Amino acid sequence: MEKINVGIIGFGTVGSGTVQILLEHKEMIANRVGSEIVVKRIADLDLETDRGLPISKTVLTKDAMEIIHDPEIHIVVELMGGTVKAKEYILAALKRGKHVVTANKALLAEHGQEIYQSAEENGASLGFEASVGGGIPIIRSLKEGLSANRIKTMIGILNGTSNYILTRMTQDSLPYEKAVEEAIALGYAEDPPTLDVDGTDAAHKLAVLISIAFGAPASFNTIFREGIDRLTPDDIVFAGEFGYAVKLLAIARDLGDMVEARVHPAMVPLDHIMANVNGAYNAIYLEGDFAGPHLYYGLGAGKRPTGSAVVSDIICLARQIRLGVKNLIPPLAHARSTAGTLRIRPVDELLSSYYFRFSAVDRPGVLSKVSGVLGKHDISIYSVIQKGRGKDRAVPIVMLTHEARERSVIQALRELDQLDILTDRTVTIRVEEGKERHDS
Amino acid sequence: MEKINVGIIGFGTVGSGTVQILLEHKEMIANRVGSEIVVKRIADLDLETDRGLPISKTVLTKDAMEIIHDPEIHIVVELMGGTVKAKEYILAALKRGKHVVTANKALLAEHGQEIYQSAEENGASLGFEASVGGGIPIIRSLKEGLSANRIKTMIGILNGTSNYILTRMTQDSLPYEKAVEEAIALGYAEDPPTLDVDGTDAAHKLAVLISIAFGAPASFNTIFREGIDRLTPDDIVFAGEFGYAVKLLAIARDLGDMVEARVHPAMVPLDHIMANVNGAYNAIYLEGDFAGPHLYYGLGAGKRPTGSAVVSDIICLARQIRLGVKNLIPPLAHARSTAGTLRIRPVDELLSSYYFRFSAVDRPGVLSKVSGVLGKHDISIYSVIQKGRGKDRAVPIVMLTHEARERSVIQALRELDQLDILTDRTVTIRVEEGKERHDS
Repeated sequence: MEKINVGIIGFGTVGSGTVQILLEHKEMIANRVGSEIVVKRIADLDLETDRGLPISKTVLTKDAMEIIHDPEIHIVVELMGGTVKAKEYILAALKRGKHVVTANKALLAEHGQEIYQSAEENGASLGFEASVGGGIPIIRSLKEGLSANRIKTMIGILNGTSNYILTRMTQDSLPYEKAVEEAIALGYAEDPPTLDVDGTDAAHKLAVLISIAFGAPASFNTIFREGIDRLTPDDIVFAGEFGYAVKLLAIARDLGDMVEARVHPAMVPLDHIMANVNGAYNAIYLEGDFAGPHLYYGLGAGKRPTGSAVVSDIICLARQIRLGVKNLIPPLAHARSTAGTLRIRPVDELLSSYYFRFSAVDRPGVLSKVSGVLGKHDISIYSVIQKGRGKDRAVPIVMLTHEARERSVIQALRELDQLDILTDRTVTIRVEEGKERHDS
Repeated sequence: MEKINVGIIGFGTVGSGTVQILLEHKEMIANRVGSEIVVKRIADLDLETDRGLPISKTVLTKDAMEIIHDPEIHIVVELMGGTVKAKEYILAALKRGKHVVTANKALLAEHGQEIYQSAEENGASLGFEASVGGGIPIIRSLKEGLSANRIKTMIGILNGTSNYILTRMTQDSLPYEKAVEEAIALGYAEDPPTLDVDGTDAAHKLAVLISIAFGAPASFNTIFREGIDRLTPDDIVFAGEFGYAVKLLAIARDLGDMVEARVHPAMVPLDHIMANVNGAYNAIYLEGDFAGPHLYYGLGAGKRPTGSAVVSDIICLARQIRLGVKNLIPPLAHARSTAGTLRIRPVDELLSSYYFRFSAVDRPGVLSKVSGVLGKHDISIYSVIQKGRGKDRAVPIVMLTHEARERSVIQALRELDQLDILTDRTVTIRVEEGKERHDS
């Protein structure tokens, strides 16, 4: 086969990066694949903006269905985002036996099962390396490189925007709002960056990762998520005094008959390799039962890294198309499905150490009342920091607990809220020691 | 296809790890592949040692050729090591169209071209994930995950033994000899650990990596290598005072028409992510022109991690065998070869900063003489440390230079050796800032 034709739906940031690589590295890619890869058609509603790429106007169209109906197009690349139209286009392409590449984590997290099934039924392959970790080939590593392992633990810094904001809050004591403004100004965040900072984006990515790691679709809605928007530079300083860095982590663990999966701000030991992943970088730390601890680190977003991941999928599919191979590796890398949907353990069963920052009224006996309520709920205190009083009415009381049940923590915090000694909702950060654990 | 049969040559550490995974994860692997993988035959000269695995005696043989001649065996796994017999077996297996998996970096570095060619001619696939980086799927990441990139820079900590020794010298000021003894006692090093500490093992691995990254076999003998055996804890302390950690690095850079490739002790900035890779861990830092900087980190050796890499190759080949695919990804991941053999730039053309530790006689005017000779050769000094004199006759003079040509350094050190002011060979450590550079 001389040429393999690609159609691209969505000519925004990632679409432009993808086309740029396919053009700039045309010869190198042809040498790797053994066939030339041609960008035959690009669909986007905006045909006017100059993307700075030598693309003929005749390649562009406003109608994505032209790509799906073009019998000469082998690979459809969906880079438009969103979950309604994108889903429609992907399912239509798969139905016609076209291979599909997508970077759409929201779509895979929320409608993955339907898409994976359609790919298998139609003998089409689905590439989604770009959906998690930008240029880091983590999807492929789970599907192939670590295929001999049961994955015991996965800890990801999967949202570069949040990590940039937390890094600025840590290194330069910027308040949350300032760090967000800066991230928006630098183009690291949307305005407003809701899905980045509230944990949704990281949870989408975690849903994709655990589906591959454990071989079954995960129900996105059962993944607990909490954002970084209530953290202050003070929390980061207190965490540092306890020996921890604060990161927005996506955490998954194999519990045998269930999976733990949650996204929230967490304290990681300062000497853990994840504590040193800063700025817009992403990292995935994982432990395989044979391969042991691993780390993958790289740029988690952006035109060039994400384009690199999209094109790696195109190359992979082109190699298969050239040899007429179908269904070499199923979407979730399991030829025989093992489970229906992954069972995710409710977060209230979690056993964890906790950081609490109470905003307490400045009155004698408050600390005793707080610790009394905690004790009643079997939450024992490991360490307390009570700083000198400021001009404000409220004073912070900061605690690190021994391991406690999340359920008890929820009850204790609710009970404390009913007393008149706290002036604001308590800030909670779970501690993540970053190792495989065996809690029950 | 119901079953895929594997024959294993070499039942030592990695062979046992491989068999253990194939047995313990039999069901999980069958689910991933869609076919059962059966260990049909294992060849080893030692049939007596109990490997603690439930393997029937009838599976074992002393004659590796029984595996190669068995028409029912699909995949031959060579884990015996060495370059003579192993080469013979691998070529014989490929000639019969059998797929081959090997962990043998020495063989690939020294005779890769012949083996890669034979695989392609016979339509057989060759897996060698286990040859570099233990359980880290770096080979697959280069062949597939980063296939959209030109690799600009690769910096590897590829030899766990050396890294363990340097870590002990750094963290506990152990002399080199003590650290080596400890590594041997702990099973991290052979006795004597010559190929580990002299840079040969890391250079073998670098040869394999650059062959894939640049798509052509590298001539192993043209890779410069220098070991860690002349370093002392003092060198590590001095390096620390200059802001650097000392690591045995394997370094490669794309120079356009040539490749830079060298293995030697190097000083890396303390805040570079590579400076914090300690103990028996391996790491590969690389920069792709689109994906940007990346790090892969994990256990670089051992029964379980290396077994994980071997089995990942077996799974990958089994998926292809099941569908009757041949030559999906050629050994060097280039369907069209682009170059004959990689041209490696002679190390004397290197432009680098240097650390020198001169052992000088304790006489006035020595520093002036040394700097005079360096200046004559265009080597300018950035910083000097001269510590208080001890009881010994010789005093150390430690310098960090600005960038200088390796050729000039060699000439200057030779000239200094002819004077009567130095009492021992000068210790040289090249500085590696860990970024892509553009020297000419």
